[in-house]
Amino acid sequence: MSPAAPRILILGFGAFGRMVARHLAPHLPVAVCDPDPAAQAQARAAGLALAETGQAGAFDIVVLAVPVPALGDCLHRIAPHLRPGQVVMDVCSVKQGPAGLMAQILPAGVEILASHPMFGPHSMPGSLAGGRIVLCPVRGGRWRRIAAFLRGGLGLRVILASAEEHDRHAALTQGLTHLLAHAMAAFQPHPLIRTRSFDLLAEALDMVGADAPEVFGAVTRGNPHVAPLCDRFARLLVAGAGSDLARG
Amino acid sequence: MSPAAPRILILGFGAFGRMVARHLAPHLPVAVCDPDPAAQAQARAAGLALAETGQAGAFDIVVLAVPVPALGDCLHRIAPHLRPGQVVMDVCSVKQGPAGLMAQILPAGVEILASHPMFGPHSMPGSLAGGRIVLCPVRGGRWRRIAAFLRGGLGLRVILASAEEHDRHAALTQGLTHLLAHAMAAFQPHPLIRTRSFDLLAEALDMVGADAPEVFGAVTRGNPHVAPLCDRFARLLVAGAGSDLARG
Repeated sequence: MSPAAPRILILGFGAFGRMVARHLAPHLPVAVCDPDPAAQAQARAAGLALAETGQAGAFDIVVLAVPVPALGDCLHRIAPHLRPGQVVMDVCSVKQGPAGLMAQILPAGVEILASHPMFGPHSMPGSLAGGRIVLCPVRGGRWRRIAAFLRGGLGLRVILASAEEHDRHAALTQGLTHLLAHAMAAFQPHPLIRTRSFDLLAEALDMVGADAPEVFGAVTRGNPHVAPLCDRFARLLVAGAGSDLARG
Repeated sequence: MSPAAPRILILGFGAFGRMVARHLAPHLPVAVCDPDPAAQAQARAAGLALAETGQAGAFDIVVLAVPVPALGDCLHRIAPHLRPGQVVMDVCSVKQGPAGLMAQILPAGVEILASHPMFGPHSMPGSLAGGRIVLCPVRGGRWRRIAAFLRGGLGLRVILASAEEHDRHAALTQGLTHLLAHAMAAFQPHPLIRTRSFDLLAEALDMVGADAPEVFGAVTRGNPHVAPLCDRFARLLVAGAGSDLARG
């Protein structure tokens, strides 16, 4: 990110915000904004500067590391303090809803980059190299330099997509996976009589279960493509069994 | 298997029959019965003796390595040639149907051991050590010596269960896994936008897809517990999505 290193504000110092800070701090000046005193203490202990919402205008890039349900409120709080040319970037697991909110609430002139890092503190506790991040540019052109840094500086694989395209794909690879884990949880404990493929399946679904609880709602009901896809999947499932849900 | 090593007849020299022969031949005298000339040539090349259906009475243990749909015919063909004290053992992936057929068709005095090896030539190409096999004793007591050999001679983990218990458990760990793979196949090719948990899920379902095509029907529609379990799973799935199939 040359010539001058851009100043980063991370809004929200939960598990994901801490992960972002840990990976950015060696490269760029990072400040944290979080109303929670415990989060502030953690940020201070990590050697990070603290900032108030009202100072949001002093940063080049504002990263919103808040859960999807909190995004609207967060945008309304920072919007009055932003200035043209700043980039606001979210990291929510769905993209159509957040991209729409950002475009609607953030003042014209503020650049918007919707993003979805396809990894988390659980799945990538160490280096991010090889991890995938989806970027959905919504407004402005500075996202190109951010993409270059994510690739070159952090070793991420950048996938460009529209927010709609992201949600359509993620409905299968993320929404359905969470729903399968949710449904499978009703069949615990798993029987001893099992194959290796079931062991692997259970392992995959357990990974999803380790996500924060608010992620489930976000990636399922928060993605408009999930319900129709899930209906189609469920119909294929029962058709394969020679069953017919309508029989009830 | 002391004192005298029991003579084994393997009926059906497909992928699974070949696997059984490969693991038993170093320990016991093994003969093969298969009407297919190509299978006979393979058995001969492997140094195994060939036998006709009419010679089935000359063996201590007859292993039926035929697909579920062929089991009934196979039993009718060998039944007239069997003598009391012989053990007939199947290796089908479901147990209630095959156990019922064997009890119905095989003459009284012939011992019956229903079995389900929870592995195959794909999942365990080398040693069988650590693999699981479910034994469902149906008639007679010689299965105890067979179980001891499977544990001590081959290193298998033996799970004892009734045929009903097997099918109830396998409905989840095997039937549903196959149905999930079947449903997921409709969503190929998988999108680039995907998480690691989805990669693992896809890997688990691909393992199932490598099974012989007749296995799918056997472990889904051939297991009476699968359709009700699948209905319940599908309902949980769509309820999780906040959807309602009845709308559809």
